[in-house]
Amino acid sequence: MTAAADARFMALALALGRRGMGQVWPNPAVGCVIVKDGVIVGRGATQRGGRPHAERVALEQAGDAARGATVYVTLEPCAHTGKTPPCADALIAAGVARVVVAIGDPDPRVAGQGLVRLREAGITVELGLMQEQAARDHAGFLQRVTQGRPFVTLKLANSLDGRIATASGESRWITGPQARRAVHALRARHDAVLVGAGTARSDDPMLDVRDLGEVRQPVRVVISRDLHLPINGRLAQTARAQPVWLCHGPDADTRDWIKAGVQTLECTVTHHRIDTLSVLRALADRGITRVLCEGGGHLAASLLQARLVDELVVMQAGVAIGADGLPSLSGLGVQELQDAPRFTLTDVSAIGGDVLQYWRPA
Amino acid sequence: MTAAADARFMALALALGRRGMGQVWPNPAVGCVIVKDGVIVGRGATQRGGRPHAERVALEQAGDAARGATVYVTLEPCAHTGKTPPCADALIAAGVARVVVAIGDPDPRVAGQGLVRLREAGITVELGLMQEQAARDHAGFLQRVTQGRPFVTLKLANSLDGRIATASGESRWITGPQARRAVHALRARHDAVLVGAGTARSDDPMLDVRDLGEVRQPVRVVISRDLHLPINGRLAQTARAQPVWLCHGPDADTRDWIKAGVQTLECTVTHHRIDTLSVLRALADRGITRVLCEGGGHLAASLLQARLVDELVVMQAGVAIGADGLPSLSGLGVQELQDAPRFTLTDVSAIGGDVLQYWRPA
Repeated sequence: MTAAADARFMALALALGRRGMGQVWPNPAVGCVIVKDGVIVGRGATQRGGRPHAERVALEQAGDAARGATVYVTLEPCAHTGKTPPCADALIAAGVARVVVAIGDPDPRVAGQGLVRLREAGITVELGLMQEQAARDHAGFLQRVTQGRPFVTLKLANSLDGRIATASGESRWITGPQARRAVHALRARHDAVLVGAGTARSDDPMLDVRDLGEVRQPVRVVISRDLHLPINGRLAQTARAQPVWLCHGPDADTRDWIKAGVQTLECTVTHHRIDTLSVLRALADRGITRVLCEGGGHLAASLLQARLVDELVVMQAGVAIGADGLPSLSGLGVQELQDAPRFTLTDVSAIGGDVLQYWRPA
Repeated sequence: MTAAADARFMALALALGRRGMGQVWPNPAVGCVIVKDGVIVGRGATQRGGRPHAERVALEQAGDAARGATVYVTLEPCAHTGKTPPCADALIAAGVARVVVAIGDPDPRVAGQGLVRLREAGITVELGLMQEQAARDHAGFLQRVTQGRPFVTLKLANSLDGRIATASGESRWITGPQARRAVHALRARHDAVLVGAGTARSDDPMLDVRDLGEVRQPVRVVISRDLHLPINGRLAQTARAQPVWLCHGPDADTRDWIKAGVQTLECTVTHHRIDTLSVLRALADRGITRVLCEGGGHLAASLLQARLVDELVVMQAGVAIGADGLPSLSGLGVQELQDAPRFTLTDVSAIGGDVLQYWRPA
């Protein structure tokens, strides 16, 4: 196999894996391609809910053709018996000759054991092909394992001058229908959607994925220290159909919420506010690997201040609201420009009449 | 000549004409192409300072080849004797057979007389080819003649969240070197650069065009009701080398400024503020066809409120400053979204690490 062919097959495995983003938590969204004599005989991605794993799907498709084949997999195959037997064993049993892995799995139950087991079975193992892309794709899973927090995407949908509502609170709609549709696609690629209490109160949002076919709906998370939220709001009313998690302080009264089918997560309060990192840790503890924060300005600012934003998606509409409108970000306490959070542009395009920008921390 | 060839030559004439933007005021930036037997024999654009006119330049280049040729010109040739004899007469004298004009000149001294004179001389005259593009290119000149105000471009260079400085006033630099270079190119395409008194005080700007070779420098205009500006600032100090015009209210003391070589323009004060439209009228009266407003937030807001912005150029940097920073736009008094000024995206691109957006009023 040439290096170019290896890269092509791994790129395909990565593309397959990415389809699972937001759909497979608490597991990583892995992709796998099996190639025999230059022909693809199996493709797989981790399935909705996290099982079966990508390797299983690809092996099943390949059948006997897997014998002597090369397997491209975006993350080290698992070596521990969880809810299913280890993928490393399945690859050995199928008689594959060579396994090319993009990146190792830092999960202490795997952590190189998958590779060791394959090598001990006489399989040629190569690690590191397209590892940068794999690290980006698996960032949520990797951060959950290594840092105990999920990947955080912050979405800002604002006017030309960075406002998310008029002085009277009107926010529907600043961006156009195509940008709003893109928000639903964005939600579908995340395990959870997160908003602050102010947004939950003022917008009474559903935070679900609509008009994108059958998807695993994201967990809807609201941060509210005292749980001063309307129990008859749309989130609470639909909590049994689609999970709602409330992150609250130690003094909040959770009884009515628990009765409504909401899951309550006690978080740390610092300076009279829920500590944002403690929220992210609570989400990671429950298996969340990718979170989309949709505001409001206080939550967005606190994530930025704590340097907890891993990707920033800005949807900018062609409307000017002015300084009496509501800002997309509250105060950051930035005195000098050199202390302001900087981002690097990764993509920009027109979407409907709006501008869609993707930024990563600089 | 086929219609496709006509369009191709007119497009070339328009492109030639556009090169004169910001360089030819008070005249329009006209382009002209002369074609004989399918071959271009002359090209011209209105020269720096407004003379000679495009037709003269092209005719001179064509020489005898102009006889029997077709002339493509982006604006109706002049018919009145100004500082030079009329271009219509020059075309007649050169013996051209056909003149294709993109758009008529509403200047009452021309207003169709150029076309009449050509027709009376037996020349075939066609009006209207690519008139939409010509109307956009000549918008500054046309608005000056028909509405008594120049074309207004508003430039906003701000953070991701619409801020132009930190709470402490630091603004250098939010955008990167490539975007800042684009600002110089933008200035060169405008007859005048306009800022409010606050920006003049806090930034002590030069507002000149740098590092773009030899250009006609824009007039630098500051709006200040009371002329509470530092007389030792960079604008005042360089007023004899590059024009500075101060738009002030009736009670301002202009004496020191006049001594410094600054031109003072008395404008109307409404609600304790200089009326923005009266500033634009004063500029148009003095021949300005294209103005670039570079802030600050109060001036930008007042232009938007009065619906006086013809083009909006947004340079957005990958930095978050937060709500304690200075907003790009002050309050617009917008209560309902439907009353907010809306814009249509005409272009978006990455420039250096920043995002460059062009918007037109919707």
